[in-house]
Amino acid sequence: MPVSATELPSRPEVDDRTALGPVRARAPVRLDRNENPWPPTSELLDSVVEQIRRATVGLHRYPDRTALALRVELTEYLTRQTGLLVDFRSVWVANGSSEVLQQLLLAFGGPGRILLGFAPSYRISRAAAAHTDTIYVECRPSPHFTLDIVAAVRAIAEHCPHVVFVDSPNNPTGLTLSHADLRRILDAAPGLVLVDEAYGEFSGGRSAVGLLHRYPTKLVVIRTMSKAFGIAGVRVGYLVAAPAMVDSIARVCLPYHMSTLNQAAAIAALRHHDGRDRPDLAMLVSERERVSNALRTKGFDVVPSDANFILFGRFPDSTVAWQGLLELGVLVRDVSVAHYLRASIGLPHDNDALLRAADILIDEGARSPTGRQ
Amino acid sequence: MPVSATELPSRPEVDDRTALGPVRARAPVRLDRNENPWPPTSELLDSVVEQIRRATVGLHRYPDRTALALRVELTEYLTRQTGLLVDFRSVWVANGSSEVLQQLLLAFGGPGRILLGFAPSYRISRAAAAHTDTIYVECRPSPHFTLDIVAAVRAIAEHCPHVVFVDSPNNPTGLTLSHADLRRILDAAPGLVLVDEAYGEFSGGRSAVGLLHRYPTKLVVIRTMSKAFGIAGVRVGYLVAAPAMVDSIARVCLPYHMSTLNQAAAIAALRHHDGRDRPDLAMLVSERERVSNALRTKGFDVVPSDANFILFGRFPDSTVAWQGLLELGVLVRDVSVAHYLRASIGLPHDNDALLRAADILIDEGARSPTGRQ
Repeated sequence: MPVSATELPSRPEVDDRTALGPVRARAPVRLDRNENPWPPTSELLDSVVEQIRRATVGLHRYPDRTALALRVELTEYLTRQTGLLVDFRSVWVANGSSEVLQQLLLAFGGPGRILLGFAPSYRISRAAAAHTDTIYVECRPSPHFTLDIVAAVRAIAEHCPHVVFVDSPNNPTGLTLSHADLRRILDAAPGLVLVDEAYGEFSGGRSAVGLLHRYPTKLVVIRTMSKAFGIAGVRVGYLVAAPAMVDSIARVCLPYHMSTLNQAAAIAALRHHDGRDRPDLAMLVSERERVSNALRTKGFDVVPSDANFILFGRFPDSTVAWQGLLELGVLVRDVSVAHYLRASIGLPHDNDALLRAADILIDEGARSPTGRQ
Repeated sequence: MPVSATELPSRPEVDDRTALGPVRARAPVRLDRNENPWPPTSELLDSVVEQIRRATVGLHRYPDRTALALRVELTEYLTRQTGLLVDFRSVWVANGSSEVLQQLLLAFGGPGRILLGFAPSYRISRAAAAHTDTIYVECRPSPHFTLDIVAAVRAIAEHCPHVVFVDSPNNPTGLTLSHADLRRILDAAPGLVLVDEAYGEFSGGRSAVGLLHRYPTKLVVIRTMSKAFGIAGVRVGYLVAAPAMVDSIARVCLPYHMSTLNQAAAIAALRHHDGRDRPDLAMLVSERERVSNALRTKGFDVVPSDANFILFGRFPDSTVAWQGLLELGVLVRDVSVAHYLRASIGLPHDNDALLRAADILIDEGARSPTGRQ
């Protein structure tokens, strides 16, 4: 006799609303997860496999729980990418930025503590708050999806959040927060400010890492190798913060959380890309501009993006439009922003498929775009 | 100016007492982590690397978040190993059994909920409770470290725990819980009963998987590939439970928690070992008996173990004895059991080193063994 979920003594706080991730739909053109659409080069794969082969001789032993070699490699990458000197003791790694966020909330959130977020935002922040019983308070967005800094500072003063979460470039809008605005948030915040820069490599903006020396007790910068590095399958997220912050995270980290294989693959990818041009990233940025302009020409509203995706609309009903695109073979993401959908930038032929599907939506009348309101 | 941890707004509940894992000591002979001491064969490594190479072509995409292929492979292994038919929907995987446990407590523990454990026990259960704000209630051990089933049933009636945790074979004693006793716990428990069988493959005892059909709303069996499979570096733990239980876990699971690499390596290891003799496991069991008997002959008390480690004493002061062994080049684990230490069974020459070091401890007088009390 099969058991149903209602017969199990689950925590009442955890229900389907906190289940994570995209609707499990399949389509020939997958633009729903903001991955780097270019498959890894055979050269990169050879490096990854070779590094893994070397690491496997010790596979019967637990991994390096401090992931020291990987953190040193990330430190060098950060220094090159941001032009700022970073100490390896300031870097911490986990299985994706979602686990980084979970660890941060285990250490600094929890029952009776408040996480303040700004809608729309990376949905894992809300889910991680639910899982850790952190109270989630959300600031509603201003028109055109920009963060209203005056309202943000007011909300911080009102709620005294233990943790503030912002993502820049923002997911799902692609908008970057200026350093001036970020500093106003940091000045106002009584506790931690987490700045998620998962899409930082696609943006021309400066990294918040440059503000660490000014806000060592507050600022945590979260980054990932799932996007620009094109190794989403390896699941490497990391944070940059004061070394004492890293020590606090290590206290709530499960032992040996990151496999020897993940550590080896990430090291190989970092070394492989060291000092090389990244034509794949340049092409993603130029494709982003091409798709954005083409959609605007068709009458869509496209939020100006600094990331590898775009938020576009307005659809009379975004769920209907999502389904319409899916039926045309293009899977995008319904991010619960009324009248808008998020599409990752894919390979040129994927993007062409998106543009053709958008044309068909327009022709079908009911799904025609209207101006931003 | 470096920041100290006390300047950070950490949760007061999370402090150094909940930090996990062994003391970071180094020694020529490492018998502290219950790993399989035999390095993986080159044949196994070739299989792992080949499976990973095939998987890396899709490395720019997120992993299969449901780890379907791995769960199917584990199902077949479980059916062979336990002789019981298992459904893949009953199997869930995560990065080590510690993450399995964390997910279980996120779904079924939490603030105001109680986890009942029996000392001594796998310490991650206590730490995972602290991290998830689950109240941890501990039953003290009976003489000779056996679980006092009458006291256990009484404690369950008294505390009405939402979750009961037992490990069989127990870590750190190596003792197996009988099915009769386990059934008394299951009958008494009002909520979940987690049975950790991390060391099940070293034991002659039956798996609790055979009780799943009787206790579908209560029983969760936790297992791992870190021990018998000799791939601790890959970090694969899993659970077997009613499919509805798996659905509940999936709600609190971070998306894409398990890398493509870990999934591929685990599949390769399962296929590699399919139907083969395991001389490494047989040798570990015979070495365990050899070391246990030799230590008993020297006058030590050795708890009869069904696992790949032994708990032995009595030392006047186990911390002093631990340090003494370390100075002699042998790293074992101080598991906070007064007068006893835990030593993993290593390769024969490692075990010889442990026995020689034990002789020296005896010669040094103050560390001589005494009878069990």
